[in-house]
Amino acid sequence: MAKIPHRLILTEDQMPKQWYNLRADMKEKPDPLRNPATGEPVKKEDLYPIFCEELAAQEMDNDTPYFDIPEEVLDIYKMYRPSPLNRAYDLERYLGTPAHIYFKYEGNNTSGSHKLNSAVPQAYYAKKQGLKGLTTETGAGQWGTALAEACAFFGLPLTVYMVKGSYQQKPYRREIIRTFGADIVASPSDTTAVGRSILAKDPDTTGSLGCAISEAIEKATTSDGVRYVLGSVLNQVLLHQSIIGLECEEAMKIIGEYPDIGIGCAGGGANLGGLIAPFMRDKLRGERDPYFIAVEPASCPSMTRGRYAYDFCDTGKVTPLARMYTLGSGFIPSANHAGGLRYHGMSPVISKLYHDGYLNEARSYEQTKVFEAAVLFAKVETILPAPESAHAIRCAIDEALRCKETGEEKVILFGLTGTGYFDMAAYSSFHDGTMTDYIPTDADLQPGFDSLPKVPGVQE
Amino acid sequence: MAKIPHRLILTEDQMPKQWYNLRADMKEKPDPLRNPATGEPVKKEDLYPIFCEELAAQEMDNDTPYFDIPEEVLDIYKMYRPSPLNRAYDLERYLGTPAHIYFKYEGNNTSGSHKLNSAVPQAYYAKKQGLKGLTTETGAGQWGTALAEACAFFGLPLTVYMVKGSYQQKPYRREIIRTFGADIVASPSDTTAVGRSILAKDPDTTGSLGCAISEAIEKATTSDGVRYVLGSVLNQVLLHQSIIGLECEEAMKIIGEYPDIGIGCAGGGANLGGLIAPFMRDKLRGERDPYFIAVEPASCPSMTRGRYAYDFCDTGKVTPLARMYTLGSGFIPSANHAGGLRYHGMSPVISKLYHDGYLNEARSYEQTKVFEAAVLFAKVETILPAPESAHAIRCAIDEALRCKETGEEKVILFGLTGTGYFDMAAYSSFHDGTMTDYIPTDADLQPGFDSLPKVPGVQE
Repeated sequence: MAKIPHRLILTEDQMPKQWYNLRADMKEKPDPLRNPATGEPVKKEDLYPIFCEELAAQEMDNDTPYFDIPEEVLDIYKMYRPSPLNRAYDLERYLGTPAHIYFKYEGNNTSGSHKLNSAVPQAYYAKKQGLKGLTTETGAGQWGTALAEACAFFGLPLTVYMVKGSYQQKPYRREIIRTFGADIVASPSDTTAVGRSILAKDPDTTGSLGCAISEAIEKATTSDGVRYVLGSVLNQVLLHQSIIGLECEEAMKIIGEYPDIGIGCAGGGANLGGLIAPFMRDKLRGERDPYFIAVEPASCPSMTRGRYAYDFCDTGKVTPLARMYTLGSGFIPSANHAGGLRYHGMSPVISKLYHDGYLNEARSYEQTKVFEAAVLFAKVETILPAPESAHAIRCAIDEALRCKETGEEKVILFGLTGTGYFDMAAYSSFHDGTMTDYIPTDADLQPGFDSLPKVPGVQE
Repeated sequence: MAKIPHRLILTEDQMPKQWYNLRADMKEKPDPLRNPATGEPVKKEDLYPIFCEELAAQEMDNDTPYFDIPEEVLDIYKMYRPSPLNRAYDLERYLGTPAHIYFKYEGNNTSGSHKLNSAVPQAYYAKKQGLKGLTTETGAGQWGTALAEACAFFGLPLTVYMVKGSYQQKPYRREIIRTFGADIVASPSDTTAVGRSILAKDPDTTGSLGCAISEAIEKATTSDGVRYVLGSVLNQVLLHQSIIGLECEEAMKIIGEYPDIGIGCAGGGANLGGLIAPFMRDKLRGERDPYFIAVEPASCPSMTRGRYAYDFCDTGKVTPLARMYTLGSGFIPSANHAGGLRYHGMSPVISKLYHDGYLNEARSYEQTKVFEAAVLFAKVETILPAPESAHAIRCAIDEALRCKETGEEKVILFGLTGTGYFDMAAYSSFHDGTMTDYIPTDADLQPGFDSLPKVPGVQE
């Protein structure tokens, strides 16, 4: 057999033309979204004020396995996709493992991460519906950048509410978003009632993601023809991100491999869900039995220590309720936590699959262990990973070392979601030895759990 | 015929296994390097104290057309190469031009630019010769990052002298270099005699590239088994960068195109020389007649307004003399100039080809025009270009618009050498309207010309 290449990049013709919807193959579907006031399941139409209609339909569809990717979306995908599936030969050699380590690299586009995969269709459907603009929030900036790129392409106005602390600390992220023509507003701001109210109480606040979400939603719902969009957690986002896994499946067919272990970092869960989608499909259909691991920070342990409960998707408590693993929408991650993966909850699809045992394991790591893996990986494989992605690297290394002990030639696939270019402050604190670890005590987690809503007829 | 893809990425098997040496096909060779004291041509052995032996041999070889790329170098190339050849369909559509616009994108590796293509073999040959370490200088940081990556891979110690102003203004660049395990020293420093002497005179200086070069050379020549390496200008670097052009040639064969116009930005000339290498070969052999354009900043116009003369390669005047287009080693680019492309001279090969008319045109642009093109390109093609690369984009757009006027369906190929991630301060000043243009007067250029050396028997 020919040697497996370092990087396999499918041709344009080999790129999947459809997204795959995991829910279609789940015998037990994720619990429905519910109205927080009434506890009633949300209907598609209820989502129209927030999402454009095709995205609302995707959000609610538990039955259709494949959705055609619109031609216009494929045309943009082709500017940066298919992304490479790399064989980490040098990491294998360094570790002395018999395992075959593969990673799917999503950092080779200007947004620097996989976020663009969902930003493009979200902007496309908004444009197609004739909307006049979009709003969103961004913390570290990957999602804001991705959506600004997509909106620039379709000529769609975009307002990004960026957490003021990040806005001030990451001026270059801000400038990239500005380069793509989006309005970028430091949140809290005086452009919304909620922002003005927060500023009145605390003029010096550096803001929060929850506040930025609330401002973005207010701006959307009070502006004519404007909708709010989200970059993770939602079913529609998992659907779009399935392009990652479908490309892996196609590439692995060509080289004659199949993952024994699938590993993804999990913040909102969209990257993990996208990466494992076709392999989880095989498992749900009883055709294969890969082992799946979700990796999260020890400081924000929604799957490993959270509750499977109905909760708000945002800290502002304006969204419908989703049943998911959650630390409670009132949970605030420790300030010492350097990377992303700060979300209090988890994709309802991923949560359900974990709850039902299809997603085998959730594992958490402390951040210094994660950065050790990141620096090793950079030196050996020449790619500087984002801290989020490095959670998956850490886990892949540990699994490969376990294979070294047992002598098993397992095939390990992990998602390398993005570049670490914009996280050098975190790398710096790691190099300087000032980075610390933090594992919340049960008492630290209690206020978050106390914030869980009572849902009439469901959670009393 | 099948539609030409948005991105054509060769397979590993299709990647060239040899570099191409333009000089072998030049009937008139570039003038030899000369000893500044005696005016005598430099011999290969004279370079051994500076370069490792195989690199010195490559530097002096005017006859061998193809050099095998070592297996170990190919193995690293395969971690990020072949790089994509993109068809800029959306830019063509935006401009309404009948031209076919192609660009070769070298920004998809952690160093963020084409520099890695030469860093890898330079580190490899140093390791092979049993050297104990390397030194280099870096200004903006692309070359320092690339060499740090390559040295990390081969386990070769590296000291990077980074201009103090950049070291302070670009802490994240510094941290990337540090992540790859290199020592990084703000220049001037107290680690060298020349550094200490400069600091004694001016303790608050923010340094200069010339000073950093002098420190790096002193450190190499006073340390056992250590050599100094350079990222552009030299013949060996052009040789390594030919991988860019050779991949273009192979990809264009597959899609049945051939460039009518080849465009590259030109600082030291290595990227331009690498991009056009195989097409220039065809021209030198009389088989084809593509039109080549070198693009440079109006504020550092070495080809458009420089002299074709013998000059030092560094501002510290410690190198041999090369005959090239130069503004004089005493030339200092205006502080308002935002990007790279600040070198006072130009690759001797590129200079000779321009002098003899094979390289058809040198063109300069003011930087605001360049950034206009960069922002347009980012919005339309989703890639944020480095300011250096955007010089080539500006020129490609102008040529495509000329085709629109004449109705010619020309094939335009330009080099997109790197990502703009690390240049957001410049983008910011462009957005804010504070970026200014600067065209030096003849009087401004005079001091540089006055710094040109007298060469015994050559330039009196």
